[in-house]
Amino acid sequence: MEDKKTRAAYSGVPGCFAEEAAMKYFASESPTGLWEDVCTLVPTGSFAEAMEAVEKGKADCAVLPIENSSTGSILNNYDLITEYGFYIVGEYSISVSQCLLAKPGTDIHSLREVYSHEQGLSQSRDFLSHYPQIRQTPVYNTAYAAKMVAQSDRTDVGAIASVHAAEIYGLEVLQSGINFKDINQTRFFVLAPAVHHSPENDKASLMVTLPHVPGSLCRLLSIFAREGINLMKIESRPVQKRNWEYYFFIDLLGDRIDARLGAILQEISDHAQVVRVLGYYKKFTSNERE
Amino acid sequence: MEDKKTRAAYSGVPGCFAEEAAMKYFASESPTGLWEDVCTLVPTGSFAEAMEAVEKGKADCAVLPIENSSTGSILNNYDLITEYGFYIVGEYSISVSQCLLAKPGTDIHSLREVYSHEQGLSQSRDFLSHYPQIRQTPVYNTAYAAKMVAQSDRTDVGAIASVHAAEIYGLEVLQSGINFKDINQTRFFVLAPAVHHSPENDKASLMVTLPHVPGSLCRLLSIFAREGINLMKIESRPVQKRNWEYYFFIDLLGDRIDARLGAILQEISDHAQVVRVLGYYKKFTSNERE
Repeated sequence: MEDKKTRAAYSGVPGCFAEEAAMKYFASESPTGLWEDVCTLVPTGSFAEAMEAVEKGKADCAVLPIENSSTGSILNNYDLITEYGFYIVGEYSISVSQCLLAKPGTDIHSLREVYSHEQGLSQSRDFLSHYPQIRQTPVYNTAYAAKMVAQSDRTDVGAIASVHAAEIYGLEVLQSGINFKDINQTRFFVLAPAVHHSPENDKASLMVTLPHVPGSLCRLLSIFAREGINLMKIESRPVQKRNWEYYFFIDLLGDRIDARLGAILQEISDHAQVVRVLGYYKKFTSNERE
Repeated sequence: MEDKKTRAAYSGVPGCFAEEAAMKYFASESPTGLWEDVCTLVPTGSFAEAMEAVEKGKADCAVLPIENSSTGSILNNYDLITEYGFYIVGEYSISVSQCLLAKPGTDIHSLREVYSHEQGLSQSRDFLSHYPQIRQTPVYNTAYAAKMVAQSDRTDVGAIASVHAAEIYGLEVLQSGINFKDINQTRFFVLAPAVHHSPENDKASLMVTLPHVPGSLCRLLSIFAREGINLMKIESRPVQKRNWEYYFFIDLLGDRIDARLGAILQEISDHAQVVRVLGYYKKFTSNERE
């Protein structure tokens, strides 16, 4: 059994949100509900290193963040998908809930400094404004901030990171959910070298380039509308060094999407200059038990 | 004259890319070509603080990054525009060119550690791979990295930051243009409390929400196509807590855009649920002398 587990590469250190997304995705895919039964995790130093691990056969797939409800799409990672020629085979979204962590037994009023990623500090601005005596120090990564607190000799330092990071580094959660936006979600793609066809797939991602003539996008979208395929996301980006030509990243939703999109790919190609199917996969739904 | 200068708020420390964008934008607006003749700069601690400075009358406008060619749109800052009810009155794009900086007279082979923002380190990955003896340490901000090097007692540390940061902190440029992507641009919006109408405006930004019925986006886009108004950018985003409803951020290009878009706003409103004009402004063109 051991060697049949999927090796999933991610960028970060244990306790980071990418690791959490990978664990939860594979838990949702596991017959037992336990990710450990179907997956082993491969931490790497960057998004590109995670893809490199797959290319060199050290991992079977890479789990990469693709967009955040606050900061938008991570276009670099769309570039990596194209560069390595991999396919999207799954997606997962996690809620990024920031917590104030410190060594067990620490009183919140004794804190004088707090570490976190700058996003973690900025998301917790309203909460921190009640504690002006706490100095805010941005560091590399939220999980790394938790590690710094655990390894520090000081008792007046805290970290803003996830509950999961608290568990890994033996810290106490002094206050949870301190980010000011209720909904702060990050969406991850699971990427693999081969396309994954399945009758259960209901979502597809496409990259197309369109000529800059009035109505070109409208003509493309009317094909999807006619077929009853729903547009879930669209994003344009100028093609570098070519004026008036655009990439579009498009997510589509519909039952048995592989077959239905496949049947109209030729027609789409008649309207677009380049068409690349980035992958077919199951839409993430959040009604799984956690 | 002094008190007629525009006070422009930005988020960051002197030497950062936002300050550079503000200087170059106001230089392009200045009859003398010198930004100092028309503008005073107001550094603040965050994007929200820059907007707050405008609301409280401490600044006349805020200069905020809105998208990067690698990392995509900064959706948080679109939220800030809506939250404060400000308008886009100008745009400017700068090339982010990373340089290796150190104290004057330093030999590159004597460096043992380099500071930069994690983006700066990752963009310079290929260059740094030739110097495995240099330890890479991510810090808050590229300009802050330059400041750390200038203030350090050590002679074996460097920073990856802009030429401008080198000038401010008295460092020498050991190597320029070390980022691996030739084109790494960041686009900034100039935001102010009042809409800016001008016959010179040729660009407009809109936010609309559309019902999730097939073809709703296509119908909206067909109005622009009919009027010969070009679509420059489109980006969708789900409306939080409302399934099947989407925000669209749309940039449009056309001569005398204020009047032409104004004439069809009523028709647009018939197809969209919410329509908000985010501003009218002049398209940024890069053929200015630098």
